[in-house]
Amino acid sequence: MAGTRKRRKIQMNSETEQELKGIVRNILESINSGEIPELHLPSRTRDNIVLDQLTSVWKYGESTTRRSAKSLDGAEYLVKFLYVIDFIIEMLKTNKSSTLREMYYISEGWDLAKFGSQGESDLLAEDLEVISKLLREDFKLRPEENGASIIGDITIEEKNRKGDFKTINCKDDVGDGGYTIPYNVEQEKLHLKTHGANFVMAIETGGMFDRLVENGFDERFNAVLVHLKGQPARSTRRILKRVNQEMGLPIYVFTDGDPWSFRIFGSIAYGAIKTAHISDHLAVPTAEYVGITASDILNYNLPTDKLTDKDVNALQSELKDPRFQTEFWKAEIETMLSISKKAEQQSLAKYGLDYVTEKYLPDKLGELGAA
Amino acid sequence: MAGTRKRRKIQMNSETEQELKGIVRNILESINSGEIPELHLPSRTRDNIVLDQLTSVWKYGESTTRRSAKSLDGAEYLVKFLYVIDFIIEMLKTNKSSTLREMYYISEGWDLAKFGSQGESDLLAEDLEVISKLLREDFKLRPEENGASIIGDITIEEKNRKGDFKTINCKDDVGDGGYTIPYNVEQEKLHLKTHGANFVMAIETGGMFDRLVENGFDERFNAVLVHLKGQPARSTRRILKRVNQEMGLPIYVFTDGDPWSFRIFGSIAYGAIKTAHISDHLAVPTAEYVGITASDILNYNLPTDKLTDKDVNALQSELKDPRFQTEFWKAEIETMLSISKKAEQQSLAKYGLDYVTEKYLPDKLGELGAA
Repeated sequence: MAGTRKRRKIQMNSETEQELKGIVRNILESINSGEIPELHLPSRTRDNIVLDQLTSVWKYGESTTRRSAKSLDGAEYLVKFLYVIDFIIEMLKTNKSSTLREMYYISEGWDLAKFGSQGESDLLAEDLEVISKLLREDFKLRPEENGASIIGDITIEEKNRKGDFKTINCKDDVGDGGYTIPYNVEQEKLHLKTHGANFVMAIETGGMFDRLVENGFDERFNAVLVHLKGQPARSTRRILKRVNQEMGLPIYVFTDGDPWSFRIFGSIAYGAIKTAHISDHLAVPTAEYVGITASDILNYNLPTDKLTDKDVNALQSELKDPRFQTEFWKAEIETMLSISKKAEQQSLAKYGLDYVTEKYLPDKLGELGAA
Repeated sequence: MAGTRKRRKIQMNSETEQELKGIVRNILESINSGEIPELHLPSRTRDNIVLDQLTSVWKYGESTTRRSAKSLDGAEYLVKFLYVIDFIIEMLKTNKSSTLREMYYISEGWDLAKFGSQGESDLLAEDLEVISKLLREDFKLRPEENGASIIGDITIEEKNRKGDFKTINCKDDVGDGGYTIPYNVEQEKLHLKTHGANFVMAIETGGMFDRLVENGFDERFNAVLVHLKGQPARSTRRILKRVNQEMGLPIYVFTDGDPWSFRIFGSIAYGAIKTAHISDHLAVPTAEYVGITASDILNYNLPTDKLTDKDVNALQSELKDPRFQTEFWKAEIETMLSISKKAEQQSLAKYGLDYVTEKYLPDKLGELGAA
């Protein structure tokens, strides 16, 4: 097992409360000393992410934005910001949590501080993460849906509502649906115990996840299968990171062949643009892509769909994305644009239901020196 | 526990194979006796569903459509039909299964019988169910995604890949994500053993499912919570039916307040239009609606969104839908049209995170004589 020294320490509710109160105190002190209160944040755009040489993940650069009470918008923002902190401290004290959607509805009772849309309240929750250097999970805020699943020989301990830890082996103690990843997979909630696996295969679609299970790929290759359910939730990316870091298991990412799937890989391996403030926490820079490429479409003569205008725009945007400036990605993206076609991972079924586990994946893993 | 006499018998692969071969034999006999082969199917539209008085579920009426080899389209259809049967028999023999999407891609190798779209192959799979009176599960065809989940005191046995049955209590043996419902929940795969519950609460959104879990609603009311994940998959509706029938537990359905949520309830309680040939198998006519209504929007003064044109069309279509011709539904649909507003179940958070479990649901269940 690889070193666990980078494991994040357990964050107590009381510590989060102190951090948040510190932020409020700073705002108060500005006001008391006659200054106009303001907050500074890195700008969270594609043009402001840079590669951190030490950790090989993409983080925000130097460019910042400012929220100042000098303008009406900025003043409203600060009032909402304080209401949100108040709401979070209330949850911390009563041991509650809330979905981001519930927080948006809760603001109905905040008079002028009521959010105009959930987009606005979600953004503010992210700002608060950036400013406090804490996580949404520490604030007890969670997304609407999660529920990605794991099948394979990995044993975890999960804390239940009563505070007891329950041991679950994700191969022996679950049904065919696997172990469902909860929204909070931090150390205080979930412990990674032992494993008997060689690597993790993270899979975009449910159909392909079930195919690998049915074909016994996990047992034959000693693989842990993780169903990403499309663009993976934070908790899914976080558990991949922890399994990679704490258990030393390599991560392979098996997706469809289209620009949105390339982004899925990007968010796992390099960090997502919207969450670059926690790339250290979520990204697995050594993750390898074994999804469908434009070259695969040609080499395997796969059934395809034509690229839509949106697909073309997304590919062109990826050509400008600092995360995709490698020979491999530039060549694959340009090939996809030139053939103007995309393909799904399930299109391998053209050659029969076993082709993916008998031929495609062994070939890909062999190229990577893994099988 | 209620009687289990209606429990569906275990369907063996060899029996399914015989059934399918019988259909092929009929087609062959037509050809041998010089007739043009054809298939007759009930038409699967809103205008051809009728209430079955005996079982109180909606089934197809007398109107039929015909697939005859006399036309080029009909002949192509019959060839595809035979290819699909051949593919299914192959799976039955090798103990494999396939997603509907994989079957569509598999048809790439069928020359002229290749499907033009997945819609076409899905429809043919449904036709085959209607003609054979068997289930998609018997054909080893499964949908792309499932993964709805259960939390509560209900114990099941699920057969794993090796053919062993594993016992899982959906309260004590699972993490916070709950037990994931597999795609096949028929008797040969899943046994319902024991329970310690008073009723089942089926919930549309993940946010509300987690809210009820966090607030301990399941423990306080002895409830089994089922997360529907939007429009429920067949396996989710089937397990609700089995829990209702075999364990005698009442089903309450808690959804958003909009026309799509009314349809979710309709598909659970009355049967869906597309699957009316198996309404007996899926629908729970005694299911009760405790979701958000137009009256709730007014009485609780809930945060709302304006109806879109699509919402209005869907509501108007429901006014003509034979399943919604009750006083309750006609009044609620007309009220929603007149106020031109819809509301989500999470909008109850306007009154705090506990309001739904302290006030809203106890009131609704009280009205229904359940709490």
